[in-house]
Amino acid sequence: MSNTLTDMRHLRFLLYEVMKIEEKLKYPYFADHSRETFDMTLEAARQLAEEVFWPTYQQVDHEGAKFDGEKVTVPKPLHDIWKHCREGGWFAPDVPYEKGGSQIPMTLLAACVFLFNCGDTSASMLVFGAGGTGRLIESCAGEALIKRFVPKLYSGDWGGTMALTEPDAGTSLGDLKATATPLDEEGCYAIKGVKRFISSGDHDVAENIIHPVLARIVGAPAGIKGLSLFIVPKYRVDENGQVGEFNNVTAAGIEHKMGLKGQPTVTLNFGEKGECRGYLIGEPNKGLKYMFQLLNHARVFTGIQAIAGASVAYQCALQYAKERLQGRHVTNLDPTSPQVPIIEFSDVRRMLLEQKAFIEGMLSLILYCASLDDDVLQMDDEKEKDRLYQIVELLTPCCKAYGSDGSFRSITNAMQCFGGAGYCEEYPVAQIMRDNKVFSIYEGANGIQAMDLLGRKVPTGGGTSVRFLMKAMGKDIAAAGEMETLKPIADKVQEVQNEVIAAIMHLSQIGLSGEIEKYISNASPFLEMFSQMVLAWQLLRQATVAQQALDNGSQETDFYTAKIETARFYANTVGPHAIAIAKTLMSGESTALDFKPEWF
Amino acid sequence: MSNTLTDMRHLRFLLYEVMKIEEKLKYPYFADHSRETFDMTLEAARQLAEEVFWPTYQQVDHEGAKFDGEKVTVPKPLHDIWKHCREGGWFAPDVPYEKGGSQIPMTLLAACVFLFNCGDTSASMLVFGAGGTGRLIESCAGEALIKRFVPKLYSGDWGGTMALTEPDAGTSLGDLKATATPLDEEGCYAIKGVKRFISSGDHDVAENIIHPVLARIVGAPAGIKGLSLFIVPKYRVDENGQVGEFNNVTAAGIEHKMGLKGQPTVTLNFGEKGECRGYLIGEPNKGLKYMFQLLNHARVFTGIQAIAGASVAYQCALQYAKERLQGRHVTNLDPTSPQVPIIEFSDVRRMLLEQKAFIEGMLSLILYCASLDDDVLQMDDEKEKDRLYQIVELLTPCCKAYGSDGSFRSITNAMQCFGGAGYCEEYPVAQIMRDNKVFSIYEGANGIQAMDLLGRKVPTGGGTSVRFLMKAMGKDIAAAGEMETLKPIADKVQEVQNEVIAAIMHLSQIGLSGEIEKYISNASPFLEMFSQMVLAWQLLRQATVAQQALDNGSQETDFYTAKIETARFYANTVGPHAIAIAKTLMSGESTALDFKPEWF
Repeated sequence: MSNTLTDMRHLRFLLYEVMKIEEKLKYPYFADHSRETFDMTLEAARQLAEEVFWPTYQQVDHEGAKFDGEKVTVPKPLHDIWKHCREGGWFAPDVPYEKGGSQIPMTLLAACVFLFNCGDTSASMLVFGAGGTGRLIESCAGEALIKRFVPKLYSGDWGGTMALTEPDAGTSLGDLKATATPLDEEGCYAIKGVKRFISSGDHDVAENIIHPVLARIVGAPAGIKGLSLFIVPKYRVDENGQVGEFNNVTAAGIEHKMGLKGQPTVTLNFGEKGECRGYLIGEPNKGLKYMFQLLNHARVFTGIQAIAGASVAYQCALQYAKERLQGRHVTNLDPTSPQVPIIEFSDVRRMLLEQKAFIEGMLSLILYCASLDDDVLQMDDEKEKDRLYQIVELLTPCCKAYGSDGSFRSITNAMQCFGGAGYCEEYPVAQIMRDNKVFSIYEGANGIQAMDLLGRKVPTGGGTSVRFLMKAMGKDIAAAGEMETLKPIADKVQEVQNEVIAAIMHLSQIGLSGEIEKYISNASPFLEMFSQMVLAWQLLRQATVAQQALDNGSQETDFYTAKIETARFYANTVGPHAIAIAKTLMSGESTALDFKPEWF
Repeated sequence: MSNTLTDMRHLRFLLYEVMKIEEKLKYPYFADHSRETFDMTLEAARQLAEEVFWPTYQQVDHEGAKFDGEKVTVPKPLHDIWKHCREGGWFAPDVPYEKGGSQIPMTLLAACVFLFNCGDTSASMLVFGAGGTGRLIESCAGEALIKRFVPKLYSGDWGGTMALTEPDAGTSLGDLKATATPLDEEGCYAIKGVKRFISSGDHDVAENIIHPVLARIVGAPAGIKGLSLFIVPKYRVDENGQVGEFNNVTAAGIEHKMGLKGQPTVTLNFGEKGECRGYLIGEPNKGLKYMFQLLNHARVFTGIQAIAGASVAYQCALQYAKERLQGRHVTNLDPTSPQVPIIEFSDVRRMLLEQKAFIEGMLSLILYCASLDDDVLQMDDEKEKDRLYQIVELLTPCCKAYGSDGSFRSITNAMQCFGGAGYCEEYPVAQIMRDNKVFSIYEGANGIQAMDLLGRKVPTGGGTSVRFLMKAMGKDIAAAGEMETLKPIADKVQEVQNEVIAAIMHLSQIGLSGEIEKYISNASPFLEMFSQMVLAWQLLRQATVAQQALDNGSQETDFYTAKIETARFYANTVGPHAIAIAKTLMSGESTALDFKPEWF
């Protein structure tokens, strides 16, 4: 196992120097905070991740979640982690003090969640799922339900899930079959149906589990317009929040997955063996809208999970590359001379640099989104709020889809650095690879993310969000272009941006002409190209801060020089691929669209 | 599980229509063969793969190879598969009749090996490892040793391995530590040392296992120039081929791998507990040269293993995409209308088409190499032989490295088609993914393949092999360019070829100027670009044959049209990436080379 789970110097660089998180202190909500409390929070998360989560990472995989036909149990270490997180107040540290939180910025929370996911992503899902459920209920339920269900989700007494998917309806949520029949108590319904692939769907770490469930009230319209959102507890809860009798939410089985084996992915039967009560949240038939509020968040967090795995794999590979002695430089023909560490070989450095560039760019993008989130949540200026909100919305599919696809590719590079040893489960990189694959699939498969980006986010308001983003990028590119050392990198990023803008203009014409299927068929390559542009920009921002530090006489020349060279590497090696995609999109290539199913 | 393991129509298309395997019948060695015997051989392989190998694919993974501290055992189905292959004469069907073979062409053998690897790659390694060992011994040992060891390897009585890697020397073979001390018997040595990662290294399916072992004769020079090759049997063999006492080759452990769990990957101790006899093959200190004769073959076969996994995953994904009903077309707003199979969505077709194009291009490349191999082995014209041999040598690293990296990417696409179900071990795609990852790593990690290509194969003879290949490509591009429907595809492939040639010219200048480290630092992106060009060409060749068939009035319009459109898709979507890499290589980008280890 690696000694250092993550590069804390880099994380602090992103938080303090690039995102300038201390500027958030101007908002009253963070009045009690300071650089010191931020540091302490970050250090506490690091310690927990490194000393509690990480040491049992392999054990959790090895034992796995279990189902005996009735009960779901999870490995012992997950119980311990849960307890530690409860004691540390990690279930919802961003919520107000009076609700048990610490009012920390989302930016800092994202960094902490990143650290926990570096430690063990199965465990992190268990913990942060509960907080997420609490936030969802708080955002759209009435006071009474909030009081009844939320406090124990925030405190870590109860677990939480999201119950959308059914055996025959995942991507197509409009086809969900779960039903809700009104009962006597106001807002209370009898829920019936089966939900599949429910993360943390059942387990033995908490005394209760709260399921937000999408179901159709009997008589409601077909499709997504007839879905309502319900709170369905595993055990009933009285109005004072006391846990009572079993609510007939039964586990029907768990999935035998390639990875994330500690995480119980459960098929749940609601109301199969008796009345299962659910409480309507908000208005009827608006369930999907409410759920999406959580989903957008969940999607950025999926990006965090993915990049955390990539980051740990990279740290392991880096350490191995520095220690593993093998062969000699190509020009050294003396077989009796000492062997050198493999990091001495440029092809190994290339593999490491591809990982480093992707990880540092993507983590930066995620923290950037979280930072804008903080501003959106705290600022008063409605116009500016809208601008920032639109940018976050636009970037969310990139965090989720490019974050997950790119992380998996990054981990294959990490494994390759290990050679044969990487393919064996003795090192954690194989498990990280197995765990990581799901992030391209769940929380909305990446193809869906791409459609969300090109089909919904890009055209919104006639392209305002794209304009906001491009303008923000343009400012940063111009600033970097003023610096002599960064000028060539800035020029390259500018070239990429120009091509992406041209591709968007081209595609818009197709969309505006009503050729919707043709327009949307470009979604996946578009997301890839768009994300590559965004990462090149994020790395350029880091390079700019680094150059400023060097100009100001910083002694950390290795650290800051690396930021500049990493940005250069990404712009020069990935930038041309983004441009290639742009050109392909503009060429009108449409073979996949035109390829008939019977041709396969 | 999928009903159809592979697309036999496509395989026959490649063999008979593209590679024109019937033309091999002109060689006397194949005099007893005909289209009918080829068909029968292929059908026998398909049947064995589909009815014997494939049904236990998941069981073999689940049970796994086991080590009890003394003995290595493999899952029961591997015993059955071994027996079936022995009865079917599958251990060395290409060798002469008098040696127990059937004198089939290498092209046909490659197709059969592909089918077996579609069925179960762990099992195929076990079987074809034995034949490979036999071929190695036959190619460089004296008559007596051949008579003593080879017949039972070809018959399937004994297993075989390749024992190169040691715990501290894998990529750097010159640092191997195993020693050989002369004994009384002529050519007989006492072998001492530890070998790691030995595929099929120990098991209970055969009465004996023959290890070709690289070791250094006491007093031999350091480095690769002091390595000799020995035959080391698990049990001693007398001059008549009778198995005798234990030869002190002991299993020290097996690897716990991410995949290929049925395949025993063993650490072997030679001579730790008593005298371990090895027989020198060929001349002393030329071991690596001999071993490389087998290795080049093994590398093409690794490409076959990889592409077989990708092909099965694709077939499974295709079937799922045709059956899985989910959602509606983007323009259909009626939620009560029936759902459609997901193959109706262009993004799913894109994922399928990416797989199809890569698999059909790569399998074609491999069969092309095998076809040239047949000519090299059978023809008399020394000049033409040399030309073809050089092309095969040049393409071998592409088969191995791009074959494995691309197959793994292809399988991630297959899993994505399944959504959440793909991540569960209930479908075989997760296992295929786990199994497949190793192919980028073993038989020479892909970075080594890239160095072999750019550092050795490309400059050979001042670039003659490149010229031979480019000329062959040029002819095919010109022929395709004559056809109206193919002209745009041919133009695209031509454009890619032009850029690749320009990149080679550029890099050659760097190499010739003596900047070896800089030259070789481009190896991995070079291999990627070069392979993409080669695959675009192979697909264009298929499109040309398809267009001819259509022109000749074939009724299989779907099948042949698909070939043309697949070639178009690859040229239009992958071609631009090859060009992007070419431009990057010519830009002089060298960040990974210049990036200091301490900057990470």
